[in-house]
Amino acid sequence: MNQSYRTYLEKNRDAHLSELREFLSIPSISALSAHKSDIKRTAEWLVNALQAAGLENVQIISTEGNPIVYADWMHAENDVTALIYGHYDVQPVDPLELWQTPPFEPDIRDGKIYARGATDDKGQVFMHIKAVEALLKTEGKLPVNVKFCIEGEEEVGSPNLEPFVEKHKDMLAADVLVISDTPMLEKGKPAICYGLRGLCAMQIDVKGANGDLHSGIYGGGIANPLHALSEILASFHDKNGKVAIEGFYDKVKPLTKEERQAFRDLKYDEEALKKELGVNELYGEEGFNFLERTWARPTLEINGMYGGFQGEGIKTVLPSEAHAKISCRLVADQDPAEIQDLIERHVHKHTPPGVQVSLTRMDSGRPFQMPYNHPVIQAAMRAYEKAYNATPALTRMGGSIPIVEGFSRLLNIPVVLMGFGLPGENFHAPNEHFHLENFDKGMITICEYWGELSQIKQ
Amino acid sequence: MNQSYRTYLEKNRDAHLSELREFLSIPSISALSAHKSDIKRTAEWLVNALQAAGLENVQIISTEGNPIVYADWMHAENDVTALIYGHYDVQPVDPLELWQTPPFEPDIRDGKIYARGATDDKGQVFMHIKAVEALLKTEGKLPVNVKFCIEGEEEVGSPNLEPFVEKHKDMLAADVLVISDTPMLEKGKPAICYGLRGLCAMQIDVKGANGDLHSGIYGGGIANPLHALSEILASFHDKNGKVAIEGFYDKVKPLTKEERQAFRDLKYDEEALKKELGVNELYGEEGFNFLERTWARPTLEINGMYGGFQGEGIKTVLPSEAHAKISCRLVADQDPAEIQDLIERHVHKHTPPGVQVSLTRMDSGRPFQMPYNHPVIQAAMRAYEKAYNATPALTRMGGSIPIVEGFSRLLNIPVVLMGFGLPGENFHAPNEHFHLENFDKGMITICEYWGELSQIKQ
Repeated sequence: MNQSYRTYLEKNRDAHLSELREFLSIPSISALSAHKSDIKRTAEWLVNALQAAGLENVQIISTEGNPIVYADWMHAENDVTALIYGHYDVQPVDPLELWQTPPFEPDIRDGKIYARGATDDKGQVFMHIKAVEALLKTEGKLPVNVKFCIEGEEEVGSPNLEPFVEKHKDMLAADVLVISDTPMLEKGKPAICYGLRGLCAMQIDVKGANGDLHSGIYGGGIANPLHALSEILASFHDKNGKVAIEGFYDKVKPLTKEERQAFRDLKYDEEALKKELGVNELYGEEGFNFLERTWARPTLEINGMYGGFQGEGIKTVLPSEAHAKISCRLVADQDPAEIQDLIERHVHKHTPPGVQVSLTRMDSGRPFQMPYNHPVIQAAMRAYEKAYNATPALTRMGGSIPIVEGFSRLLNIPVVLMGFGLPGENFHAPNEHFHLENFDKGMITICEYWGELSQIKQ
Repeated sequence: MNQSYRTYLEKNRDAHLSELREFLSIPSISALSAHKSDIKRTAEWLVNALQAAGLENVQIISTEGNPIVYADWMHAENDVTALIYGHYDVQPVDPLELWQTPPFEPDIRDGKIYARGATDDKGQVFMHIKAVEALLKTEGKLPVNVKFCIEGEEEVGSPNLEPFVEKHKDMLAADVLVISDTPMLEKGKPAICYGLRGLCAMQIDVKGANGDLHSGIYGGGIANPLHALSEILASFHDKNGKVAIEGFYDKVKPLTKEERQAFRDLKYDEEALKKELGVNELYGEEGFNFLERTWARPTLEINGMYGGFQGEGIKTVLPSEAHAKISCRLVADQDPAEIQDLIERHVHKHTPPGVQVSLTRMDSGRPFQMPYNHPVIQAAMRAYEKAYNATPALTRMGGSIPIVEGFSRLLNIPVVLMGFGLPGENFHAPNEHFHLENFDKGMITICEYWGELSQIKQ
């Protein structure tokens, strides 16, 4: 591939950084309605940037929430089309006093740009625009067709994205979805994430008598909802840290030998993690190490539980209610609704006498997993090697990004999670920043990726 | 026994009731420091009432908290001495808006006197004073020696009573302690309580990582303190509702055949209880019914538990801490400190890996149990029969009144719990009241008791 785009990026670096500062200085906080007009301004800013880069059909499409910005360039010589997803909204900035420089006054120091959204995700959206611009300005064309879909509600759970994708399937049709919103392994070690855990959450409410009772007068003679809840919660796991819900693991894709070896090759430092978290030992499902447990095995966690007296000292009350919030992280091919069914059955089976239990289904998202030897991922690996001179790690993530699976399912396309942020860059926290080293190498990776992608056999 | 005291009580009923109103109108709330001067006024009021009744050595004895009022009459022909314990302090009155008439403006309606303290315990203290007065005014003497010890901190846990008793053992020396602060079984059915459960409370704190973690990134790979706590709490009981702590029942005095039959003879209505509490079934230790479970068997209850997210919806957090407050009700001859030792050992044994657990000992009080065939109780039964024309039930109570055991142990004397309140009289709640029927019959019972007591063989 012609490397003149590199010269373009080098020559225009200062101009690009000052454009990026402009982009980052608009406080596009989606969680706070006071920033509605900033959201609008950011979408408009993107329209200009996309048009200036040479993209076409640039438009702001309204949704029931914040608008989505669309653009494309569809004149490639082959018929491979990449869809780039990103988001222009950012997290709130509290606590403001912990920021060394104001979150919306981008500051470059020590080779990093500090601002809310620097890494998550405005910085990385900007890189995709500039990569396209560099190719178009130097070659006059791109090796593949590209489409941009940049939303403004990712930080509030993307409530309007799936309906949007469903409605605009034709417009968004592509051969691969590229998202730059996941972390690298560490400095100098890029990573391609091929799996995300899904999620399903539930609330468990246990009810005993119709009011709190005196534990002296009634204690021992009537069921205590806190006991009942403890029994239910304790029944979720067996002694080996496995989830004890019947059928829970039935659809879990086992880790392959190859994957386990690849995870081991990452030489994850469990000792350092213990130190960082201040624990004497790690704990989880028997037979798996930390990376396997958090990347590739499903879990059930209690996120909260409460009932009865929480003040200082003691109150000899026999409470009438007890509550817990639980959530499962799921892996392919577990189905959130099926797992919720299994949990419901388990809870009813393990509810001791004398109390009523009710369950409420809350958030859910399917797990996502790509075959890591898929051609679009192999192409990405080659692109990374050219930019970073290093083989990217093939990783999974323990967290959930439900839109990834939604996009993939609705458009029936593979996904490449090609993120350039570093783990310590404080996304969602004060002093968010982005390493400019990855700003530079990331744009090269993207340009090379379009080249590699144009070579793969469909 | 000469019955002229009855005429005296009848003739002076109105005067006594208006004195009682005066006593009840002083807001002697011990929990609120704003009422310090009311406490003092109440003690002074008692001094006058005791002197007017013909008692001697009447004095206010200061403690580190509220003062204790003492009085005696020691001229009986035999050498039997009864010590009467009561308290002149009352509970707070919130929520005030639920009172039909103001709590400190006593109102008589439907044969009941409404006021804070009417039944708990000013009304019953007053009855003891007037019973003595009736006998002294009509006979010029009492059948036994009596001592009064009336404290002002019962509603805040009597923190200064045991030190006081310890210090004044000689002054308080007696053959029997009489307390009128427990309920009758129901209207027309008096009861003598011969057993009270003890208490020991603990807090359990479970600590995992040094901060809350993202359940996606760490979930499944590090111990969750909420899980650990649930397991600990669930381990406290076996499947049959028995406490599963090793050694817990070792010192429990078994119920005798006779007692179980006596409990059954009370024909306690478990169906009515279920309806009242809104539960489908009662629950507790296998092999025992509700009265046995709550009166005569020890328990372990979770009074509160909390950790993690408690708000609306879900937060996928892996919390760093979990907490529970537990308390045991104990029966003779369990020792609170020993039980706390056993709990501590059990908790450490059942703490799963990956978390730190710490225990804090809180309130404790020993159980109390009298042999129900003790002469001082048999004498009380005869007195009740004369006043109520009904055999009093021999009952136990599930609650704890730690001072009962303390008095009994320190002075080495039997205790007769001779209460005249009814279960529905709202002690500790708005619209506290006292049935005047039991005001009248109670004073007769007391007078007859002094007569019966003078007959028993030492």
